Amino acid sequence: MTDLIHPVILCGGSGTRLWPASRESFPKQFIPLAEPGRSSFQATAARLGDAATFARPAVITANDARFLVAEQLAQGGIKADILLEPCRRDSAPAVAVATLHAAARDAQALVLILPADHAVGDDAAFVQAAQAARAGARAGHIMTLGIAPTHPSTAYGYIQPGTSLSGEAGEAGARAVDRFLEKPDAARAAGLIAEGALWNGGYFLFRADVMLDELEAHAPAVLEAARAAVETATRDLDFVRLDEAAFARAPQISIDYAVMERTSRAGVLPVSFPWSDIGTWGALWEVSTRDADGNALRGRVAVQGTRNSLVHSAGEILTTVVGLDDVVVVTTDDAVLVTSRSGGAEVKGLVDTLRRQGEPEADAHRLMYRPWGSYQRIDVGARFQVKRITVKPGGRLSLQKHHHRAEHWVVVRGTAEVTVDGTVRLVHENEAAYLPIGCVHRLVNPGKIPLELIEVQVGSYTGEDDIIRIEDVYGREGR
Amino acid sequence: MTDLIHPVILCGGSGTRLWPASRESFPKQFIPLAEPGRSSFQATAARLGDAATFARPAVITANDARFLVAEQLAQGGIKADILLEPCRRDSAPAVAVATLHAAARDAQALVLILPADHAVGDDAAFVQAAQAARAGARAGHIMTLGIAPTHPSTAYGYIQPGTSLSGEAGEAGARAVDRFLEKPDAARAAGLIAEGALWNGGYFLFRADVMLDELEAHAPAVLEAARAAVETATRDLDFVRLDEAAFARAPQISIDYAVMERTSRAGVLPVSFPWSDIGTWGALWEVSTRDADGNALRGRVAVQGTRNSLVHSAGEILTTVVGLDDVVVVTTDDAVLVTSRSGGAEVKGLVDTLRRQGEPEADAHRLMYRPWGSYQRIDVGARFQVKRITVKPGGRLSLQKHHHRAEHWVVVRGTAEVTVDGTVRLVHENEAAYLPIGCVHRLVNPGKIPLELIEVQVGSYTGEDDIIRIEDVYGREGR
Repeated sequence: MTDLIHPVILCGGSGTRLWPASRESFPKQFIPLAEPGRSSFQATAARLGDAATFARPAVITANDARFLVAEQLAQGGIKADILLEPCRRDSAPAVAVATLHAAARDAQALVLILPADHAVGDDAAFVQAAQAARAGARAGHIMTLGIAPTHPSTAYGYIQPGTSLSGEAGEAGARAVDRFLEKPDAARAAGLIAEGALWNGGYFLFRADVMLDELEAHAPAVLEAARAAVETATRDLDFVRLDEAAFARAPQISIDYAVMERTSRAGVLPVSFPWSDIGTWGALWEVSTRDADGNALRGRVAVQGTRNSLVHSAGEILTTVVGLDDVVVVTTDDAVLVTSRSGGAEVKGLVDTLRRQGEPEADAHRLMYRPWGSYQRIDVGARFQVKRITVKPGGRLSLQKHHHRAEHWVVVRGTAEVTVDGTVRLVHENEAAYLPIGCVHRLVNPGKIPLELIEVQVGSYTGEDDIIRIEDVYGREGR
Repeated sequence: MTDLIHPVILCGGSGTRLWPASRESFPKQFIPLAEPGRSSFQATAARLGDAATFARPAVITANDARFLVAEQLAQGGIKADILLEPCRRDSAPAVAVATLHAAARDAQALVLILPADHAVGDDAAFVQAAQAARAGARAGHIMTLGIAPTHPSTAYGYIQPGTSLSGEAGEAGARAVDRFLEKPDAARAAGLIAEGALWNGGYFLFRADVMLDELEAHAPAVLEAARAAVETATRDLDFVRLDEAAFARAPQISIDYAVMERTSRAGVLPVSFPWSDIGTWGALWEVSTRDADGNALRGRVAVQGTRNSLVHSAGEILTTVVGLDDVVVVTTDDAVLVTSRSGGAEVKGLVDTLRRQGEPEADAHRLMYRPWGSYQRIDVGARFQVKRITVKPGGRLSLQKHHHRAEHWVVVRGTAEVTVDGTVRLVHENEAAYLPIGCVHRLVNPGKIPLELIEVQVGSYTGEDDIIRIEDVYGREGR
């Protein structure tokens, strides 16, 4: 056993409370929210850069998010194992899988579980906390980080710390856990803080063998399913794809319920770095840089006579607020949310309603990521649709055909290699290609810079499901 | 002299207080606001449909709005004279021009001046009021309609009525005007209402010769400029284009200041139909149909826990409000405004700020009307731009060329007649045409249905001003 910490980033959430920026197709951990230009997932991964402290990280994420995870890691120059959950099963199965993955190399590996969607205001303090918690983990405790509360939050669970742990762990500041407490009401929260309770940040540091023992004791069905899913996992490009049938057997339960509230081996290290789970737009306002009027403004935004508000324009839309205080206004290219800074928790209910009404904006973004790049619908009419398609250098779309539409491609940047019914040709900037209905075609970017093209689809039906895939290098069933 | 009323619709306003729906390039009188599918200009013109009461109307509008006016009249099947103001000069010069235009046919014509941007809740009552005011006008009074106040508005001017007019006019309810009062504060407004004052709706009915006498007496410079502008006006398609040099000499002054507050011939007919000048978003909420929660919702909108609010999505953007009362949220394809229902007057200041900052959304809409149809930018990048272009049956774009861009046209509906360097060919649905940089080209819709095409521009500069016009059937300098 070495002292290295094996970090595992839990990256499977869908985060509808930060709609419309966060959606099923592009959840909040992947969006630059708390800081410009970098998602909380990227910030979390970057926080683990000290190779003397952290081993190569693993990321557990939903199957649909795999190319997004790979892309964002590549942007940050970070190498990681990417474990793919074939379905959503809450945190206990994910922790079980992560632990088994680490234990395969070192039965006593130190595993650190981190949520991908939290903001930490002091990276060095976080690393020091992880280092300080090691002694407790080595001694057989499942260590948590207990964050010093800054206000009586009703959005967080609390940890009541007990006596100091013995030996080196205690010297490093670690204490036993008296109990875990669920989200309290406001009065109870104030009382808990007065009694010395800490926020449960959702970080766990433990020896793999210890967690496996505790899973065996308290959640054997979770462990069994996770073990089967890992043992029959397949490698697919850079991904470890967990076995679907096995993983689906895991009960849907959080690690807090499954293990932490039942184990006698929980420990807590009190820490005091700035932290937020960015659970609501109001929480994002709390951790954002604000101007003299208390406004957190991002993107194409103008305000007048407005204070203590969050105004966030994620796309090109000019977003203005006049004469209102304490509001949240979030604009994307296809949706707008206006709410109060305190009312953020109700957004989830709104998204549920939109979903029931069949509004596509409930879950889908206009900009869709694919392994070869991305596409975005820019116009649609009765018998046509227009998309901007971006293909990464080396990216290859599937060999495909359509039953109901012809396509016109105009290259506006880079070079395309276009295959139509077996004939390959290069199409350069300001050149066009025509793909008649029913032709078998493929688009490849053979160049060194991204390829951008405008696709005009014409036909009686232009839905995404009119794609007959003949061959795909990414092993996908969709486009 | 007949009993027919010659209506003149003043249609020259720019209406920034209803931004972002109303802009310089498409002002509020042309937008369906108070009722779905019909603008207040169209509703105003339709209100004059009784041929036994009203002669063919005239419309006075800004030069830039001429095709919009013609289009909206055509939609309503209404024939009118369209008088074009070459520059903006407030209402007195417009009234002078309108009066001279009517007097040319009948020196004693009864002229009714109507603003294009007001909501009237009862068309029949309006027509009855115009008919009832005729006796006063025939007797030599400049009649106004004094609207019964429903609340102590600070947004309207007031009229203090005096004694009954003599004869038939008095029998019809007309009274002399004691005085005109400017917009009061709230306390003064309540006092005025208690004293029997009425709102000044901005309607004027008079004999042409009477108004010309009063202009001569009180605003001779206005009359002189208007007379010169009308005498040297030119006909251009269906339009009467006032002489620019002459009209520009007119002082910029309202008819209220120039004549009404000075003349001794003012009369007022008290009326009580529902009316609003739709001067702010809050005023629009007042006259809108509202649901059980007091919300006026229009377009792709969803609200939750929200009351007494106006939520208006003019384009495709899904607009949501959660847990806020008394707010105004207006979304267009490129801009969002969030404000309070009472704070609408500050919107003008916001637009002024946006204009100073050079934000294009301050004045320009994405959808731009042209005599041949319309175009809309749907995407833009570093070296490209994509537009959706719609050409009416028979519409002809100018013969033109570009120095810095090539264009690809893909027809998605209808048939295009495309001229490239002297060669003419038909391009049908799902066919494309390529226009190299520098070629002389023209687009025509020779068909019976609208032509829609997607234009992909590729080049180092794609600004609207890179159009060298060689010939244009509409006599324009722009595209």
